[in-house]
Amino acid sequence: MAGSTFGKMFCVTTWGESHGKALGAVVDGCPAGLEIDEDYIQSFLDRRKPGKSKFATPRKEADKVKILSGVFEGRTTGTPISLMIENTSQISKDYSDIADKYRPGHADYGFDVKYGFRDYRGGGRSSGRETAARVAAGAIAIKILKAMGIDICAYVSQIGDIEINRDNFSYDEISNNSLCMPDKDAAEKAAHYIERLMEEKDSTGALVECNVSGVPAGIGDPVFDKLDARLSYAIMSIGAVKGIEIGDGFDVVKARGSYNNDSFRVSDGKVTKATNHSGGILGGISDGSDINLRIAFKPTPSIYQKQQTIDKNLNETEIEIKGRHDPIIAPRAVVVVEAMVAITILDLMLSDNCSTISGFFKKFLN
Amino acid sequence: MAGSTFGKMFCVTTWGESHGKALGAVVDGCPAGLEIDEDYIQSFLDRRKPGKSKFATPRKEADKVKILSGVFEGRTTGTPISLMIENTSQISKDYSDIADKYRPGHADYGFDVKYGFRDYRGGGRSSGRETAARVAAGAIAIKILKAMGIDICAYVSQIGDIEINRDNFSYDEISNNSLCMPDKDAAEKAAHYIERLMEEKDSTGALVECNVSGVPAGIGDPVFDKLDARLSYAIMSIGAVKGIEIGDGFDVVKARGSYNNDSFRVSDGKVTKATNHSGGILGGISDGSDINLRIAFKPTPSIYQKQQTIDKNLNETEIEIKGRHDPIIAPRAVVVVEAMVAITILDLMLSDNCSTISGFFKKFLN
Amino acid sequence: MAGSTFGKMFCVTTWGESHGKALGAVVDGCPAGLEIDEDYIQSFLDRRKPGKSKFATPRKEADKVKILSGVFEGRTTGTPISLMIENTSQISKDYSDIADKYRPGHADYGFDVKYGFRDYRGGGRSSGRETAARVAAGAIAIKILKAMGIDICAYVSQIGDIEINRDNFSYDEISNNSLCMPDKDAAEKAAHYIERLMEEKDSTGALVECNVSGVPAGIGDPVFDKLDARLSYAIMSIGAVKGIEIGDGFDVVKARGSYNNDSFRVSDGKVTKATNHSGGILGGISDGSDINLRIAFKPTPSIYQKQQTIDKNLNETEIEIKGRHDPIIAPRAVVVVEAMVAITILDLMLSDNCSTISGFFKKFLN
Amino acid sequence: MAGSTFGKMFCVTTWGESHGKALGAVVDGCPAGLEIDEDYIQSFLDRRKPGKSKFATPRKEADKVKILSGVFEGRTTGTPISLMIENTSQISKDYSDIADKYRPGHADYGFDVKYGFRDYRGGGRSSGRETAARVAAGAIAIKILKAMGIDICAYVSQIGDIEINRDNFSYDEISNNSLCMPDKDAAEKAAHYIERLMEEKDSTGALVECNVSGVPAGIGDPVFDKLDARLSYAIMSIGAVKGIEIGDGFDVVKARGSYNNDSFRVSDGKVTKATNHSGGILGGISDGSDINLRIAFKPTPSIYQKQQTIDKNLNETEIEIKGRHDPIIAPRAVVVVEAMVAITILDLMLSDNCSTISGFFKKFLN
Repeated sequence: MAGSTFGKMFCVTTWGESHGKALGAVVDGCPAGLEIDEDYIQSFLDRRKPGKSKFATPRKEADKVKILSGVFEGRTTGTPISLMIENTSQISKDYSDIADKYRPGHADYGFDVKYGFRDYRGGGRSSGRETAARVAAGAIAIKILKAMGIDICAYVSQIGDIEINRDNFSYDEISNNSLCMPDKDAAEKAAHYIERLMEEKDSTGALVECNVSGVPAGIGDPVFDKLDARLSYAIMSIGAVKGIEIGDGFDVVKARGSYNNDSFRVSDGKVTKATNHSGGILGGISDGSDINLRIAFKPTPSIYQKQQTIDKNLNETEIEIKGRHDPIIAPRAVVVVEAMVAITILDLMLSDNCSTISGFFKKFLN
Repeated sequence: MAGSTFGKMFCVTTWGESHGKALGAVVDGCPAGLEIDEDYIQSFLDRRKPGKSKFATPRKEADKVKILSGVFEGRTTGTPISLMIENTSQISKDYSDIADKYRPGHADYGFDVKYGFRDYRGGGRSSGRETAARVAAGAIAIKILKAMGIDICAYVSQIGDIEINRDNFSYDEISNNSLCMPDKDAAEKAAHYIERLMEEKDSTGALVECNVSGVPAGIGDPVFDKLDARLSYAIMSIGAVKGIEIGDGFDVVKARGSYNNDSFRVSDGKVTKATNHSGGILGGISDGSDINLRIAFKPTPSIYQKQQTIDKNLNETEIEIKGRHDPIIAPRAVVVVEAMVAITILDLMLSDNCSTISGFFKKFLN
Repeated sequence: MAGSTFGKMFCVTTWGESHGKALGAVVDGCPAGLEIDEDYIQSFLDRRKPGKSKFATPRKEADKVKILSGVFEGRTTGTPISLMIENTSQISKDYSDIADKYRPGHADYGFDVKYGFRDYRGGGRSSGRETAARVAAGAIAIKILKAMGIDICAYVSQIGDIEINRDNFSYDEISNNSLCMPDKDAAEKAAHYIERLMEEKDSTGALVECNVSGVPAGIGDPVFDKLDARLSYAIMSIGAVKGIEIGDGFDVVKARGSYNNDSFRVSDGKVTKATNHSGGILGGISDGSDINLRIAFKPTPSIYQKQQTIDKNLNETEIEIKGRHDPIIAPRAVVVVEAMVAITILDLMLSDNCSTISGFFKKFLN
Repeated sequence: MAGSTFGKMFCVTTWGESHGKALGAVVDGCPAGLEIDEDYIQSFLDRRKPGKSKFATPRKEADKVKILSGVFEGRTTGTPISLMIENTSQISKDYSDIADKYRPGHADYGFDVKYGFRDYRGGGRSSGRETAARVAAGAIAIKILKAMGIDICAYVSQIGDIEINRDNFSYDEISNNSLCMPDKDAAEKAAHYIERLMEEKDSTGALVECNVSGVPAGIGDPVFDKLDARLSYAIMSIGAVKGIEIGDGFDVVKARGSYNNDSFRVSDGKVTKATNHSGGILGGISDGSDINLRIAFKPTPSIYQKQQTIDKNLNETEIEIKGRHDPIIAPRAVVVVEAMVAITILDLMLSDNCSTISGFFKKFLN
């Protein structure tokens, strides 16, 4: 069934395979009058572009975005914004040997069972390349949120056993190292660890954290479209994610209510909280505090070691994956997380515009 | 915005507040011809009913379900199934003192900001009572899945520091103790712990696990409606959930690809996997293995200790919550988890019916 | 598949069969703070209630509506509003003879093919009684629109060959005669015509017109959710409707562009049009003029004459329908038309709240 | 709000303006394994292409379609099919004089009110060019339906006062004349009429009929997603449509039930009907007979006469439209009607796949 559209108000439909002619997104429901251009969107795509460091696949994709519709004289028109990224580096022969074998840790087997066959070139639709379209769409959402004072920042906080030191946290550092870690020392240690893994033809998982500041209280639609429910939906739809936490996350299992409850306070006439165990969301509705997410990314399943698997005829066999694969997914996924979080929050903020009858009347009766 | 409907094919709309006249669910999209009756659905509601143990609120709700439509001569007709549960135990005065104060850990503040005011009696729409409607709807989904050989089992695996001993795991034990733990010893220890917390007017968080067996490979709709994305959406929409893991969950952060990848095998002509780190889902599509979820429930926010908070006029104040509240949420939520998991899986299985053109033709051309 | 929900922002889900325990609607997405009570909604239900005149079935349904949720202290809370109407007059034996035969002009055969069997008591889900739930939901939409200066008025303008005289048009007359015609003389002639048809065990079709004034320009979402497209969707979903026209409707076939184009004018600083051939909608967006609809209702298919048909085993046979049936559908459908038009317009107005980025910012940044 | 997606299972999202870089459609939900290629889709686009006759704008658009995703080795993969048509003939200066004036009969004014400004080049999003994307998507639906024995045929049956002679009806003739009329004599008369109108700088409306054969009984989802409701939604979303009829349409106003009811019959073991006043749909569900639609297209609003109108500053003024415009819309819209009808019927047939529990079980349990 159709599963390539996300959002109710700010609707993002992505399309495209890793080795097709192009991939893209259609953004329907973006309010009219927003200034936007290709250069701005490109700056986000460049953050997830392959080939930038030794820890990312050397595949050289230009990842140049084109705006095909929905923008006129530099501003959005309220009509669908079509964004396209052409695939330029398709060395299909790299993948020809895996057409009949199911790569462990990948969706190959599931696709074959579901659809009867699959585009076997590099993951097809389930490739991480699909997220380039999400980033392009998310850049638009981020621009709107930014104008409203909402900042979204994701980074890698742990790789294997190597965690960042919170005392050493630096937002500036995130874009300084190729692992997107906010702690220079941890980034260096992690780099050595990954180099060793690459020699061993292996890969590693990682933890990504995302902080969102500036979201007003009141966002989220009870009961199913709670803000945390929609965020989990959005984040878990990114390939390789295996866990998500809001606020204290799994630590709440051991916590007591007297500790976990955040006391409300008033400061300078504004509502604050003494603590933020809730991660900015209570009962599925934003409470005005920062929103904190923690996201577990699994190790890249494409490793160069020989692995046991089966083929399409259900014979056991071995597989040796070739091609160009990152030894770690998380650093390039950081901007994808930001994009999906932005799309989700904007979507719910747009829907919040009609929560009260007085707000609705105001628009039409002024 | 409307947020009370879940599911694309098997659409569940819930309605109702904790202290209104009734609450209920409308199930639209259930295939015709399924045998169903009130007694069957009631047996699920009885599992989450309050007043059954000393660890659950003594509020005595009959929680009697009525089928108002969609079932004729004992079978579903394909039309909407309306399920209603009348509220019989509404001691509204218990809640009158909290009308103007925001309870810490609750959605009170968010509701007031969003909607301008709120039904302050016992949580209104954000009350855990809303989940009774989900359980009624989920019972129908569970019946269909069961007939297809799909079993869903949730239980409490940790309360505070007290974890179950996996060597002592007993499915039968889950329904034997009031904490829904599959390990009798752990349940006894946890009971003592909770008794102490109750004396201290406190509450505790807990971990719920859910295992699903029998789901065929191929379920889940790339790219946004991945099986794990929809499950996370469904589970995180349950109040008090702060984290969710699929398969190895956050352990993947430390894992290597060579460990995390599950090798495919063939056994008796069927596809299996040597391990199940994926938790039964690869690339968002079921792989035929058991699906494993781990879910973090926060401590009940309604505790009897005096707490600091603010009132509607943004004055700092104290609050002492009265009424009838569980010291732990998880045991009564176990059946809610099963219901939401069932609704999600059935919904995606119904949509999978048209994945291939040959399957589609077969229905109409034979 | 689930087909019982209408609307994207103001979502109406109806449930219930003609001879089940009850029927109802869940309205999700209604803004909070609207004053509403059962008496107000009841006044709309009374307009379509059976048993009021000799031209309506003598079936005595109280059609008493109950608000089960979503309203607190007289105002909507922003949560789902559950509306229920219990069925009190279910003389099922009237229908027992038609369980195995397909009534001509009815959906019986289609239901059996689609669902394998059907609730054969009086049309089940395809009964006109389902529209009572629409009227209850529509009453809420009408209240909101009325407060914004939007008036919706439907009436019967033709029955058989008897048309109203436009020179004799009186809005007050619509509620004075049992046929809901705005022309007393035409209503009297039509009454005689229907009396004769009743003697001949026959029924008649009719034309319903609906005028909407006060809709601001700019409503309707290109390209599929045009205002006229959504109105046609809503109106054609009412049983017995076989045609719909906007503005000049089928007369445009013979018209020239120079005639059909409405010139824009300015009057008192406001945009008007010299003519209104468009019926208030241009390119799917309201143009600020009155919206005019014309709707064709077929004759009641339940007639008392002996008719040829087939049974479930595909044998040709005869059927004689008993029970209580209106000789004309349109007069009781007038309020259903108003309800569906209101739901559609309100739904699109709610979505219009975010058409511009400046409008969106204004809500959050003041 | 997002309004550019149609369909629940077979989801078509269109994007693009008349004078942007390109326009296109994303088709999500198409079953996997369907053979499709660009040449096949192109043959449908060629039917609506401009510049083919003297009655169509001489604008020379190649209208070449590219498949960018979702098709691998000649077959659909089950993932989104992205279809793009580049705009090659954009003579923007033709339109520069209308940037500030509202063309009568067009959506210009509504767009400005709704979005604050508009792409004034040739109608932008509300241009008839948008329907090229619908035709490309519809071609896929038509291929699937054709394989199931379902034929959809639309044609022009009346232009101004000139009606086809039913005795002279020829399916072959439809593609022989540039007006798509199934009666050669009527087509010739209509051609003369249009030539005269062109001299008078005027345009004409027309009637399009669409017949669908082979749809099995049981298609359509009560109560809102009735087959006729969805068809009306789809058809009325085509610009310039002002009326739609199913079966006898507005003739039912004068009809009696004894005439309007179609008697069921059995012929060769199959259900038939003695007449087909219902137009193949009863109670919103297909009854197995041919589906008949009649659709009123208004005259092209772009005429070369001087017209009275207003400008953006609400001053009354005159406008003289230049550029390249058809004197009649209907002939080029015939294939658009077929496309939208196909999309609608296929969408509902895909959803019908799960109407019964036995059908659902069959897919997974064999």
